[in-house]
Amino acid sequence: MKLKFQVVCLLIFLNQCSTSILQAQELPLPSKAQLAWQRAELGVLISYDLPVFKLSRYDQAKNRITPIEDVNIFHPDSLDTDQWIKSAKSAGAKFAVLTVTHETGFALYQSDVNPYCMKAIRYKDGKGDIVRDFINSCNKYGIAPGLYVGIRWNSFLGVHDFKVQGNDEFAVNRQAYYKKMCEGMVRELCTRYGPLFMIWFDGGADDPSKSGPNALPIVQQYQPECLFYHNAQRADFRWGGSESGTVPYPCWSTFPFPFSHAAKQDSIFADNFKLLKHGTPEGKYWMPAMSDAPLRGSNGGHDWFWNPNEDHHVSSLSTLMNMYYQSVGHNSTLIIGLTPDNRGLIPDADVSRLKEWGDTIRSTFKQPIATWNSKNDEFIINIPEGKSFSKIVLKENIAQGERIRSFTIEAKESTHWNTIMEGSCIGHTFIKVLEKPISAKSIRLQITQSNGKPMLDSFSLY
Amino acid sequence: MKLKFQVVCLLIFLNQCSTSILQAQELPLPSKAQLAWQRAELGVLISYDLPVFKLSRYDQAKNRITPIEDVNIFHPDSLDTDQWIKSAKSAGAKFAVLTVTHETGFALYQSDVNPYCMKAIRYKDGKGDIVRDFINSCNKYGIAPGLYVGIRWNSFLGVHDFKVQGNDEFAVNRQAYYKKMCEGMVRELCTRYGPLFMIWFDGGADDPSKSGPNALPIVQQYQPECLFYHNAQRADFRWGGSESGTVPYPCWSTFPFPFSHAAKQDSIFADNFKLLKHGTPEGKYWMPAMSDAPLRGSNGGHDWFWNPNEDHHVSSLSTLMNMYYQSVGHNSTLIIGLTPDNRGLIPDADVSRLKEWGDTIRSTFKQPIATWNSKNDEFIINIPEGKSFSKIVLKENIAQGERIRSFTIEAKESTHWNTIMEGSCIGHTFIKVLEKPISAKSIRLQITQSNGKPMLDSFSLY
Repeated sequence: MKLKFQVVCLLIFLNQCSTSILQAQELPLPSKAQLAWQRAELGVLISYDLPVFKLSRYDQAKNRITPIEDVNIFHPDSLDTDQWIKSAKSAGAKFAVLTVTHETGFALYQSDVNPYCMKAIRYKDGKGDIVRDFINSCNKYGIAPGLYVGIRWNSFLGVHDFKVQGNDEFAVNRQAYYKKMCEGMVRELCTRYGPLFMIWFDGGADDPSKSGPNALPIVQQYQPECLFYHNAQRADFRWGGSESGTVPYPCWSTFPFPFSHAAKQDSIFADNFKLLKHGTPEGKYWMPAMSDAPLRGSNGGHDWFWNPNEDHHVSSLSTLMNMYYQSVGHNSTLIIGLTPDNRGLIPDADVSRLKEWGDTIRSTFKQPIATWNSKNDEFIINIPEGKSFSKIVLKENIAQGERIRSFTIEAKESTHWNTIMEGSCIGHTFIKVLEKPISAKSIRLQITQSNGKPMLDSFSLY
Repeated sequence: MKLKFQVVCLLIFLNQCSTSILQAQELPLPSKAQLAWQRAELGVLISYDLPVFKLSRYDQAKNRITPIEDVNIFHPDSLDTDQWIKSAKSAGAKFAVLTVTHETGFALYQSDVNPYCMKAIRYKDGKGDIVRDFINSCNKYGIAPGLYVGIRWNSFLGVHDFKVQGNDEFAVNRQAYYKKMCEGMVRELCTRYGPLFMIWFDGGADDPSKSGPNALPIVQQYQPECLFYHNAQRADFRWGGSESGTVPYPCWSTFPFPFSHAAKQDSIFADNFKLLKHGTPEGKYWMPAMSDAPLRGSNGGHDWFWNPNEDHHVSSLSTLMNMYYQSVGHNSTLIIGLTPDNRGLIPDADVSRLKEWGDTIRSTFKQPIATWNSKNDEFIINIPEGKSFSKIVLKENIAQGERIRSFTIEAKESTHWNTIMEGSCIGHTFIKVLEKPISAKSIRLQITQSNGKPMLDSFSLY
């Protein structure tokens, strides 16, 4: 039990708290990849599969149990992965993830183990490899590439919630085949395209001790630095418990299990995914939260895949900014879903909104009106005369763990410190959006509880 | 009821029987394609599928319920369809049939509807088309090409005895998909490769009024002259009730149903396939019998597919000659199964035996010692002094139906006619192999029962 060795100390004067540093080393720490993922803050998931070409509304429940009649409906005439990645980059995304397979089972590359792939179609004379195009574009534009592999559903092969249809010896044999096929795809994806930032198994990659593919050792062997998300053994980050693109506050990067929700623990699912949403500061495992939402998530839309004539589902700038504050600003990495259309392009409306959003984030946080001088022992910012601010941004050095457990922020108008807010988790980034701008003489952060010496990275006002 | 219009007359003097000719027109007659098939007498079935490359004994029951783990095991390094067809031709085959798909579901061509095909493998960089190679070779050597499509079993997609695994809505949807996929394959095969001599659905193509593909209209539309074998609607020939390469005597070309055994009529299966074996002279439908056997059918073998180290299964010349007499000589077309190996070649032992067999058939029937002069009204052959014979060959002009219903053959040594044998069906070819050679002055055929005027094509002694 690691927790009993942790000493929580009240910090009146921060530099007097040296005794707790040793204990802090017992805290879970992020891996290099997890740190990069949290520092990325924003990424995109690009979802592309056969149903896009049906030109009818994406119906997940039906699609899961209905094979696509003609695989050759897949024929984008203007597919341009550069356009995808430039769009993502314009929003500020630092990584992009492509659905290599989704629920049809159709693979967007030249698989030698899954015949239901780009080899099967007339597009590019059966030689298309959208995974390669995608990764080339990522590398060209400095975006970290990730791959999403859906194996839980496969409408072509008859797989439903990981289970091959049927109950006899034939089904058992096909299940074993499917397991090997999935492992083969993971091996191909891990060995053909260079370093991967992350590999994401849709709904998890099941339990390898049962019928699930033994994916983890393959990823570990060929992509030791790649984020693994996720199966019943391990999750390098966790789903934040909704598809709203937000997490509630506080949202700790630590979790009580090494897996997120692929191993079905009641406590994970309880209370509307409360544990996934909040994590727990006592968690033994570093597993930061992902916020995810489709860009087309407004006005009745929640579209991970493109549907025709639904540009009005693209979320507004203010929705996206609120999402940003409640995800990135809550110590969570935000993944926004992009939807290439039947031409093979991110639609124009989406492209515009992504740029507008990125521009707004960049301009909002371009230059703080004032910032803490890290050489100071006290976390105090003196505000230039006549300046006001509406956002407080705190960053903890999470490479040393999430040490800070509670804090207050105070403002001094003349001689008196008035509390603006009290908080708990800071993590990679904490953003406090004030209801209205404040002008004050000074702003002070008081760390009222910490596990070990608090390691603040930055404290700025915008 | 057609039968009640038929008049069976006893023929004492053949030319006195003119009254029955009109009624004979009520007899079922072969189509042009059926006539060609019966006149071909000998064909080959070339079976090739993924399990050949497993290099272990072909285990049908296991293979049917076990997907091939790695489709890329298919990599023949010396595949030569010319060699296949030359081997078949050396035996005297007039047509050849290739298993486009067998029980794995893997298709030996560039299918746009079945992803589990040559597109999926590295062989020839995914551009191989063995169906095309095969048909090109057939055309080059003047062999009529046929295609065999197995849809009853599909170990990859989970199809067992036509049924997609599972019992829920997903299975119903996949069954509908599979039906369309099979129809799509039939359409591709009927439109891409020029005229086909026959298309053979393994175990039938099921019942299109249920979940079976509606194959017949596709074949009728694109290959109106192609033999269709078979589904619950139609069979242009019938299985002869065993895989011994023989049919018992008599074996009529007429059958009581338009389908052979795809529509499961108890009367067809009764008494060890008696009806399939014998047909019935009263049958309303022309449906001649196929005898089939693998070339590797001796010494414990019955190998439709190649197994390593089993050259000793190749049937002996005398076995093959007996097979020939009891199939071709019993009014049945013989199809012999050939087994390309993992190199992609018919094995040497098989090549030698096929040529030896063909040479023996050709030399046996090169020149009759005497033959009936068709200008004679009486079926009498006068035998040159000092000649003996051991085979009597009768051929009826079956384009006019199987009119002859019983006959006797007599020999005259000096003045007296002695009965050598009594028979019923002649059909396309009747061969009587005598236990020992006979020398006589004359041989006479007496047609003792006929439906309409008997139409003898030839009557020769060898």
